[in-house]
Amino acid sequence: MTRVREAIQISLFQLDNYGPWTVTPSPRRETDLQALQARLYADLADFVGKFDGYAFFDRFDNMIAVTNGMTEGDHERFQEQVGNQYPVTVSVGIGVGGTPTEALGAASQALQEEGSAQDADRTERLATEGGTNSSQGELTVAHFDVVDVTGEFTDQKAAGETSLAIQRATVSLASYLREEHGGIARFVGGDNIIALCPSLDSDAFESAREHVQSTTGIDLQVGIGEGETAHEAGYRAKLALEECRETGTRLRRFGPRATIDQ
Amino acid sequence: MTRVREAIQISLFQLDNYGPWTVTPSPRRETDLQALQARLYADLADFVGKFDGYAFFDRFDNMIAVTNGMTEGDHERFQEQVGNQYPVTVSVGIGVGGTPTEALGAASQALQEEGSAQDADRTERLATEGGTNSSQGELTVAHFDVVDVTGEFTDQKAAGETSLAIQRATVSLASYLREEHGGIARFVGGDNIIALCPSLDSDAFESAREHVQSTTGIDLQVGIGEGETAHEAGYRAKLALEECRETGTRLRRFGPRATIDQ
Amino acid sequence: MTRVREAIQISLFQLDNYGPWTVTPSPRRETDLQALQARLYADLADFVGKFDGYAFFDRFDNMIAVTNGMTEGDHERFQEQVGNQYPVTVSVGIGVGGTPTEALGAASQALQEEGSAQDADRTERLATEGGTNSSQGELTVAHFDVVDVTGEFTDQKAAGETSLAIQRATVSLASYLREEHGGIARFVGGDNIIALCPSLDSDAFESAREHVQSTTGIDLQVGIGEGETAHEAGYRAKLALEECRETGTRLRRFGPRATIDQ
Amino acid sequence: MTRVREAIQISLFQLDNYGPWTVTPSPRRETDLQALQARLYADLADFVGKFDGYAFFDRFDNMIAVTNGMTEGDHERFQEQVGNQYPVTVSVGIGVGGTPTEALGAASQALQEEGSAQDADRTERLATEGGTNSSQGELTVAHFDVVDVTGEFTDQKAAGETSLAIQRATVSLASYLREEHGGIARFVGGDNIIALCPSLDSDAFESAREHVQSTTGIDLQVGIGEGETAHEAGYRAKLALEECRETGTRLRRFGPRATIDQ
Repeated sequence: MTRVREAIQISLFQLDNYGPWTVTPSPRRETDLQALQARLYADLADFVGKFDGYAFFDRFDNMIAVTNGMTEGDHERFQEQVGNQYPVTVSVGIGVGGTPTEALGAASQALQEEGSAQDADRTERLATEGGTNSSQGELTVAHFDVVDVTGEFTDQKAAGETSLAIQRATVSLASYLREEHGGIARFVGGDNIIALCPSLDSDAFESAREHVQSTTGIDLQVGIGEGETAHEAGYRAKLALEECRETGTRLRRFGPRATIDQ
Repeated sequence: MTRVREAIQISLFQLDNYGPWTVTPSPRRETDLQALQARLYADLADFVGKFDGYAFFDRFDNMIAVTNGMTEGDHERFQEQVGNQYPVTVSVGIGVGGTPTEALGAASQALQEEGSAQDADRTERLATEGGTNSSQGELTVAHFDVVDVTGEFTDQKAAGETSLAIQRATVSLASYLREEHGGIARFVGGDNIIALCPSLDSDAFESAREHVQSTTGIDLQVGIGEGETAHEAGYRAKLALEECRETGTRLRRFGPRATIDQ
Repeated sequence: MTRVREAIQISLFQLDNYGPWTVTPSPRRETDLQALQARLYADLADFVGKFDGYAFFDRFDNMIAVTNGMTEGDHERFQEQVGNQYPVTVSVGIGVGGTPTEALGAASQALQEEGSAQDADRTERLATEGGTNSSQGELTVAHFDVVDVTGEFTDQKAAGETSLAIQRATVSLASYLREEHGGIARFVGGDNIIALCPSLDSDAFESAREHVQSTTGIDLQVGIGEGETAHEAGYRAKLALEECRETGTRLRRFGPRATIDQ
Repeated sequence: MTRVREAIQISLFQLDNYGPWTVTPSPRRETDLQALQARLYADLADFVGKFDGYAFFDRFDNMIAVTNGMTEGDHERFQEQVGNQYPVTVSVGIGVGGTPTEALGAASQALQEEGSAQDADRTERLATEGGTNSSQGELTVAHFDVVDVTGEFTDQKAAGETSLAIQRATVSLASYLREEHGGIARFVGGDNIIALCPSLDSDAFESAREHVQSTTGIDLQVGIGEGETAHEAGYRAKLALEECRETGTRLRRFGPRATIDQ
């Protein structure tokens, strides 16, 4: 196992041959599938939480997680647990990279080289590109939400309208951060979007906010945190976002040692 | 309790004062919140599944479900269960309407009249506009997915790219169906999008497909089902979509009594 | 479907061929099995809770529930859910009888006639003896606990000692009620034992208490409730037990219309 | 944190002030409580499973686990997870000892010194006696089951009779091992009883079998495993028990390096 220097390790958890399973021998009840997927994701979140990681449901049959500090053996333990508790199995690709997008790309490629997601023989694989990253590097997490979502949206508009607005903001933000900085942004519930980023200055986040505003009309605020684990960086990002909510500022940033203001 | 004639009943399940709770007394660990939300949604899916309903995670703190046949007492039973098993509580708005959008609008409004989602005193409310719909009307469910997603996306591209493509297709489709027909479309995992619709002819669905293709470049196929419950309509939609996958046709439709072809 | 007059319907939920599965292809990790069994039981408890039933984990691979009011179709819905969400399947025997023991006996026999629990071909069966009981008869639930368990045991003795004492009391009580009255008593957590009983006078419960005291030295108190569902009867039993805790009396009884004292 | 030499570390997980909570403001629905307890136990099993530990549901409001290798910080992570996902909180006592009974006694005492289980102010405590045991010592796990339980019991007798027989065997075995050797035996589902033991020769286990046979008439077989973690020892015990099932021998033993026969 080669140790690599890049900061972020991302793992792609892919349910094996899941699409065909959902219609074999006949289409399975949708609510049963929804519950299955959601609980499997919850178990992944709990699992990586033990390692101070972060998890995103992504497409549910393809889930992603920040897994710095998790060894191949730790990933295998999760695969074993799923295999023993669910009617489906999971393969994993582990990728390490200088940016979140690079790391996820490496994880995807490692898994693709094992065979197709719908190859019935490709089950419970664990694939890595260049080993795992046991060193806890510096991570940046940016936690966005919609300014006054309760007053402007939830309590005023139909639930369908609010959801669509937040989905539009998510797509706009995720596309921008991906293309400009190799970041990964995902919706995490409510009006919250969490972005994994390389080290960026505050102007970059301000530009992201402005991009979302100009393309969707939605006003986001953002707390940015840095730390040695996703949890540590994310926790600081949450504290910074709390300050935005309280003070009305749109961007706040907490570093590992001190409060770094805009 | 007044009986109403409109076909669809949609309930909005809103976690009470959830945003503030997630940061009290200090921000809670993100993976714990992810797991909590996902499991609560899974429990909702199981619950409405007993009544042949459908559930969507929507924003997790605001979940929606087709609940035709569920009485107020049934909704209260779910609220009791959540209150006993989770650290959070849930309020519910029930709406009935001629289109899914009208029904969800009524559910939202009923709940909004009870007070703000972040009002600490507005907890475990059950609000209806015009009673519940115990008669099982005719429902239309359209189940979309991306043509050859495994070959074109999952096995070829980085996971991040695939996710974004599907999110764009979802937003495009959901916006179109909402504005044109009062439909509600939601991502349900993988490359699947499920739409609740009023009774529409096949041209309307073909136009929706074309709209997504022209705005995002993504080629969707769709199975359409009709039935007396969301499960029955959705099951037929799944069968119809299976035929699309096998035959290469892009639209297929199964009615309650016979196969209605394009 | 024949309607029968006897009051209690008990269903036996038996995991199909579970023992062999736990060691195929090699012994599965014990904690994974523990979690699997516990969650499947939790799902059963939630399911029958919707019908105001009661559930007991019993042996986990054989779980029992009071299912008055649940049709065969309702049981099938649970079997479908388990089949879609777990790596194991479940068969069900439904029994109706004049006493809980008779009902469980009928459920066991119905299932045994379908084949062995370790017959690989006997999967997802639903067997009944004489139909289901859709009428909600009168049920009696007795809720026992240990007098001052926290002061006398939990805060004083090693956890192992307390557990054993409660297990001894459970076995003593369950054997007595089964042999004398056809009742079924099961440990439900903490120091609580719940008994399903036919209609009995208070002397019968007092004798049960005395039997446990004389055989194990453990002093139980009991709240007895009657009602049309297990939940209704059980709720009254809990209220009655609360009175025991507050007043120091050892036996209290709440009927459907009024408080019937000892 | 003092390191100690004794082999086994056992943790007692105690729900804080749980009894009063279950009846506040009025008795909570029993099936909701059953599901809550079972899921919380499942989460504990998953958690300690990551550290190759073992968990027992014990009384559900007091659960026990073998936690060698788990630090205080790991225990705190579990407490944090429960606090964020459940309506109840958990306190933990960690004990280390030469025998399982000594370790559990130390864990109980550590927790008792923090205050009563029903003291509303004693919440989320973590108490140790003499630190945690980060060294993985030698553990012995004995896995018992009933000879031909399916043929003799499950397929022949009423479910209630089988359950009682296994409960009697459990109480008999647990009492014997506790008094004679400081072992802890718990029912783990089906007809399985798992015992944590100090290092004992095969005669000791044979005597335990005979004790159960003579006091309850039930014929047990036992697989015994030794290893550096509960999982490792337990896995070998399962393999040994498989040999009993296949060969008809009543006792089999697998050590860390080689097969040690009776």
